[in-house]
Amino acid sequence: MTVLSTPIDPVFDLHRGGKMAVAATVPLASREDLSLAYTPGVATVCERIAAEPALVRDYTWVGNAVAVVTDGTAVLGLGDIGPQAAMPVMEGKAILFKQFGGVDAVPICLDTKDPDAIVAAVTAIAPSFGGINLEDISAPRCFDIERRLDAALPIPVFHDDQHGTAIVTLAALRNAARLLGRDLGDLRVVISGAGAAGIAVARMLITGGVDPARLAVCDSRGVLAPGRTDLNPEKAALAADTRPRGGSAADALRGADVFIGLSGGRADVSAMAPGGIVFALANPTPEVHPDVAARYAAVVATGRSDFPNQINNVLAFPGVFRGALDAGASTVTPAMKLAAAGAIAAVAADDLRPDAIVPSALDPRVAPAVAAAVAAAWRA
Amino acid sequence: MTVLSTPIDPVFDLHRGGKMAVAATVPLASREDLSLAYTPGVATVCERIAAEPALVRDYTWVGNAVAVVTDGTAVLGLGDIGPQAAMPVMEGKAILFKQFGGVDAVPICLDTKDPDAIVAAVTAIAPSFGGINLEDISAPRCFDIERRLDAALPIPVFHDDQHGTAIVTLAALRNAARLLGRDLGDLRVVISGAGAAGIAVARMLITGGVDPARLAVCDSRGVLAPGRTDLNPEKAALAADTRPRGGSAADALRGADVFIGLSGGRADVSAMAPGGIVFALANPTPEVHPDVAARYAAVVATGRSDFPNQINNVLAFPGVFRGALDAGASTVTPAMKLAAAGAIAAVAADDLRPDAIVPSALDPRVAPAVAAAVAAAWRA
Repeated sequence: MTVLSTPIDPVFDLHRGGKMAVAATVPLASREDLSLAYTPGVATVCERIAAEPALVRDYTWVGNAVAVVTDGTAVLGLGDIGPQAAMPVMEGKAILFKQFGGVDAVPICLDTKDPDAIVAAVTAIAPSFGGINLEDISAPRCFDIERRLDAALPIPVFHDDQHGTAIVTLAALRNAARLLGRDLGDLRVVISGAGAAGIAVARMLITGGVDPARLAVCDSRGVLAPGRTDLNPEKAALAADTRPRGGSAADALRGADVFIGLSGGRADVSAMAPGGIVFALANPTPEVHPDVAARYAAVVATGRSDFPNQINNVLAFPGVFRGALDAGASTVTPAMKLAAAGAIAAVAADDLRPDAIVPSALDPRVAPAVAAAVAAAWRA
Repeated sequence: MTVLSTPIDPVFDLHRGGKMAVAATVPLASREDLSLAYTPGVATVCERIAAEPALVRDYTWVGNAVAVVTDGTAVLGLGDIGPQAAMPVMEGKAILFKQFGGVDAVPICLDTKDPDAIVAAVTAIAPSFGGINLEDISAPRCFDIERRLDAALPIPVFHDDQHGTAIVTLAALRNAARLLGRDLGDLRVVISGAGAAGIAVARMLITGGVDPARLAVCDSRGVLAPGRTDLNPEKAALAADTRPRGGSAADALRGADVFIGLSGGRADVSAMAPGGIVFALANPTPEVHPDVAARYAAVVATGRSDFPNQINNVLAFPGVFRGALDAGASTVTPAMKLAAAGAIAAVAADDLRPDAIVPSALDPRVAPAVAAAVAAAWRA
């Protein structure tokens, strides 16, 4: 009889017991330590904060703590897998917050999909945190949830699937256009996907200088256009603001300068104008393989770490929250998002090449640059 | 002109920036690290948990994570100071969880005092944690909130102000009685205070062997007795179960063997039976100064760290949750609480003296002993 060794799975081995822990930052070894950190000493700190609640940011971890909140309805490409199954992603996000932004992030997976209940729960726990990062909440629910929380809470609320993606995409597009000597306002742009990311990227590109008349946003039924009766409010608003012509995605792609894939579908970019830009961001399977895209486009990016030009939110969210917390911001304004995109683009601009339009996800210069720009934009 | 140096306050200095942090427990230095801990590797772990949600305890930090939840309504002796001002205490609690129980605890201060909203919010965030430690929620609201959460959630819910205090008090009383050669069932016991702690201590002492007919529980108006019409349901139930005679606390104390102060009021223990037991647990000012109590009682304990026999919840909660998490318990049963009290008493029993009826709060033997006893009681 042969005893087979247990196969080793590096991913499951790594995740066993979780990927994060809490640590005390003060000594707890002596009676004196306890009397300072806990009773009776702590009472004077409580009384001081009771008199001036804003001091909670100075005398507790709240000023550096962010909740990473999901309801598990749109996790990675896996869809509605529930709060338990979402936890490995939220934990991963939390440790990226720490690694790149020095932010103490806590994963919060909610056992409800009801927007009212989500808003109520996050509002209830909000005094415990300096910011709320919403994550993997399905569209179009995510828009309303973010809007309501941002209005209700005195701390930044940021749905990363929207704004993180939008910030990094704008940074990448700016550098790609610069590399090609093109002006953002002259480019004909097609976005495939009108979920959380597609809508937010469209809005951010317009804010960043793309001409809405040259921007077509497509969902699975074609270009968002005023004539369509099947649009949710966010899509309808975008239809009213962008290229008024309808048609299919293929129609829109004909002669386009830029394709931005955020849909997970397939895309044929062969009819685009030559020398253009393809961002095929679906993960793990890009809308068009980068080798194929390279036949038709001068600059190609994906969401994957194993190809050049990885457009990854980790370039944005740690620095955005670091900057917002440092500045004591009560929200994340469009100007702060623009500043974040500018900072990311600037890091890569030092050595701009077609296969290096964005910095590496591991580049230690990024988060501090983003944080400084975001904080400055808030203070301005 | 004289420049005065800034006075240094060691408590505020210690609390600046908070007392805790999050840390990654996996490497995040390389692209390969990121692909295992985050996308794309994490997706396989999510899919596995989606198929079998209980695995969230094995492959995330949930199995070791506890929320320390308060609404800020009954913080230390300070009362209703709100969620922000409660945070230093919850953070302190969280790091004690880590230090003594190896539990990753997260402070959650709620921006609501409505019991329905508290239950809804804690239920919503519950998938993120392996247990819920309720803290500093005022009575009688705390009873209903705990009961409803315990019924609703598949994880342990434990209101420490009730059960932590009760466990340690029972442990101390057992050792004091043993030292005096007395049987618990023969002792005439008076509890001053019928809030969260007073009610829970009374219930625990009865479970642990105190004769309810010899137990008088007093609130500010005197002994809880069936004739009174001013009692909330918990007090009324206890009145029905304990010494049926009414009267004042002073009446009850005459000739009593044990005084347990949980009220913060003053107590005159001079009329107690000689050679008895006084636990004056109000913090920071005991109901009777231990030097005064020592004139009338053979064993004296307080809640303070600067007198002998400190009856402090930190002897219980880290081990209770450590044991409950280790055993995968879905609740904390009365048997588990009794086991915890027994374990604490046993550690001190090795070297039992009138000034050492409970172990030191820093004794490293306590939490593992409590954890083992609690886990065994659940498994039984």
